Amino acid sequence: MRSRICLAVCFCLLVSLFVSLNGAPEKSEDIAQVRAAIEAGNIKFGEAVRKGDAAAIAALYSEDATVLPPDSAMIKGREAIQASWNGSLQMGIKDAVLTTVEVSGAGDYAYEIGKVLLTIQPAGQAALQQTAKYVVVWKKAASGSWQLHVDIWNSLPAK
Amino acid sequence: MRSRICLAVCFCLLVSLFVSLNGAPEKSEDIAQVRAAIEAGNIKFGEAVRKGDAAAIAALYSEDATVLPPDSAMIKGREAIQASWNGSLQMGIKDAVLTTVEVSGAGDYAYEIGKVLLTIQPAGQAALQQTAKYVVVWKKAASGSWQLHVDIWNSLPAK
Repeated sequence: MRSRICLAVCFCLLVSLFVSLNGAPEKSEDIAQVRAAIEAGNIKFGEAVRKGDAAAIAALYSEDATVLPPDSAMIKGREAIQASWNGSLQMGIKDAVLTTVEVSGAGDYAYEIGKVLLTIQPAGQAALQQTAKYVVVWKKAASGSWQLHVDIWNSLPAK
Repeated sequence: MRSRICLAVCFCLLVSLFVSLNGAPEKSEDIAQVRAAIEAGNIKFGEAVRKGDAAAIAALYSEDATVLPPDSAMIKGREAIQASWNGSLQMGIKDAVLTTVEVSGAGDYAYEIGKVLLTIQPAGQAALQQTAKYVVVWKKAASGSWQLHVDIWNSLPAK
């Protein structure tokens, strides 16, 4: 009887060991799932930009996220990030098409390398397009959704 | 006898479960260790820049690292990274003082947010200083050392 209980305990421990090891998305099938979640997040990001909705953009970031725009100080926290995106929308950013190039990571963190095509149209002017490259560190929230946690970009060379 | 063996197996499984959980540096003591390794890496980085040694700089990156300099295409792989750093050294980069602001991560990946003070002195000109902010994704190599795996930066506002 005692050895049966012991075997049951062993089985439970083996299962939890497997779960804990598989929890880290370093395996290719896990990374594919994370990449799909990130690409879905990027589609929401583009939709929020096209709507001019800074609150919806900010909601995609973690509560304590950091955004590092070129020629700017670091912007820390969702409230400050919303204010910053509101400013960018006022300046005429009309669309952001994000293309994921590389995703990897472990546990609740993943990094994404990508390119973005921005459409910018200041009031009364013609629309222009700009490309940039970026790195985003995504963090898995307690809810299970992946959020932008660190966001930095810079310009690609002019064609 | 059988239950003793079973207890021994249980103990071994418990230990391996603890090891596997503690292997992820999400706990603060683990992150402190990773941060110390990253800061030691940054000191080596500065030394290599002061020596003008592009090969020593490139050796701090992973074999398949990506560097994303402003106004440049993405640079992929240690060989291309060495060539790029060689160009930057030729342009007059004399020193890079890196200051870590934030480190977090999980498993074999950690991100670092930081600031860098660059000293640039093109041939025959006075030295000037530039500040930038950066995000580096560090990856733990099979050897156990942490290497720069993704490296992107952009300018801070002029003071």
